Amino acid sequence: MTPAPNPDRRSAQARRNILDTTIELIARNGHANVTIEAIAAAAGVGKTTIYRWWPSKGALALDAINDHVGEALDFPDTGDVVADLRGQITELVNLLNGDIGVVFRGVIAEAQSAPAIGAAILETIIEPRTRACQARLVTAVAVGQLRADIPTRAMVELLYAPVYYRLLLGADALRPQDVPDLLDHCLTGLRSPAGDRMAP
Amino acid sequence: MTPAPNPDRRSAQARRNILDTTIELIARNGHANVTIEAIAAAAGVGKTTIYRWWPSKGALALDAINDHVGEALDFPDTGDVVADLRGQITELVNLLNGDIGVVFRGVIAEAQSAPAIGAAILETIIEPRTRACQARLVTAVAVGQLRADIPTRAMVELLYAPVYYRLLLGADALRPQDVPDLLDHCLTGLRSPAGDRMAP
Repeated sequence: MTPAPNPDRRSAQARRNILDTTIELIARNGHANVTIEAIAAAAGVGKTTIYRWWPSKGALALDAINDHVGEALDFPDTGDVVADLRGQITELVNLLNGDIGVVFRGVIAEAQSAPAIGAAILETIIEPRTRACQARLVTAVAVGQLRADIPTRAMVELLYAPVYYRLLLGADALRPQDVPDLLDHCLTGLRSPAGDRMAP
Repeated sequence: MTPAPNPDRRSAQARRNILDTTIELIARNGHANVTIEAIAAAAGVGKTTIYRWWPSKGALALDAINDHVGEALDFPDTGDVVADLRGQITELVNLLNGDIGVVFRGVIAEAQSAPAIGAAILETIIEPRTRACQARLVTAVAVGQLRADIPTRAMVELLYAPVYYRLLLGADALRPQDVPDLLDHCLTGLRSPAGDRMAP
């Protein structure tokens, strides 16, 4: 007996196919050069199917990023916050050096003149991951590994801003082997431990 | 006797007019929505005049940014590197919250899919200002205010990355009143001065 078609499973497959196609096409051609029509054609679905699920190309790209990243950037808690941050930031750098980075740079570029896309980036990517990182940092503060007098949100900013600085401005390449030093500078600070000395 | 027209002075006036018009039009309409033709028309010059001096809209926008910023972001040396950085970064934040910020965000957005514009941003804006900041930090290292074991280039990155993170992603607003804390976190670091303690 042939099983009846399962609309839920067909929907899930179509969704998966659209998300994969979105990453592929944008990584190859650039966010600005890819249309919803082109994604629909390459994914073998109608344009209306995409618009039923996503309000815009930016929203679709953000969903595709989150889908591809999956749990890869979740925070472990080994008890050693430095090791946990080093592992997570290295994984982020590796992801941003691949197709995900091309897609994310395209969406961030669009956000510079489209506030709704900027808000969507914050809501779907930045804020949930900031809160997840804060949760890990709160534990580290509680066991005395990190300072209690700096808000964990400010810590997240300091730790991740250099990654985005390199991704978007590129004065230095975004390389996984640089993560330990970046992290160390954030943790130890720039001030001389000896304090000020008089100039000779 | 009527003085003979001075071609150098007329050129300088035309150049000044084009640069001012570029900032005005892009700040009002967005980088992506302004053409060289529109800038030429608004500045009362021919399109070929602009192309004689600038190879692209991005190059023109970068020149206009540098021209408008002028010496406002030069580094003082009062002997107190913290005060000098605080003043300079505050001035940068104020500039980025005005028309210059809109124009710069537009050029950075364009750079995400146009490597030549990315290279021009580094060459005309980021690298010269990074070197100027490094020169100030070298002095601070020499008098024992900053650590000698962190490269000054890495210090510049840590100090300025949060400014660009806020400008381009906007998880928190870019506010001059936040500069002292941002700077303090960079200087003191996130690690607990007491070192690790065992969890209770």
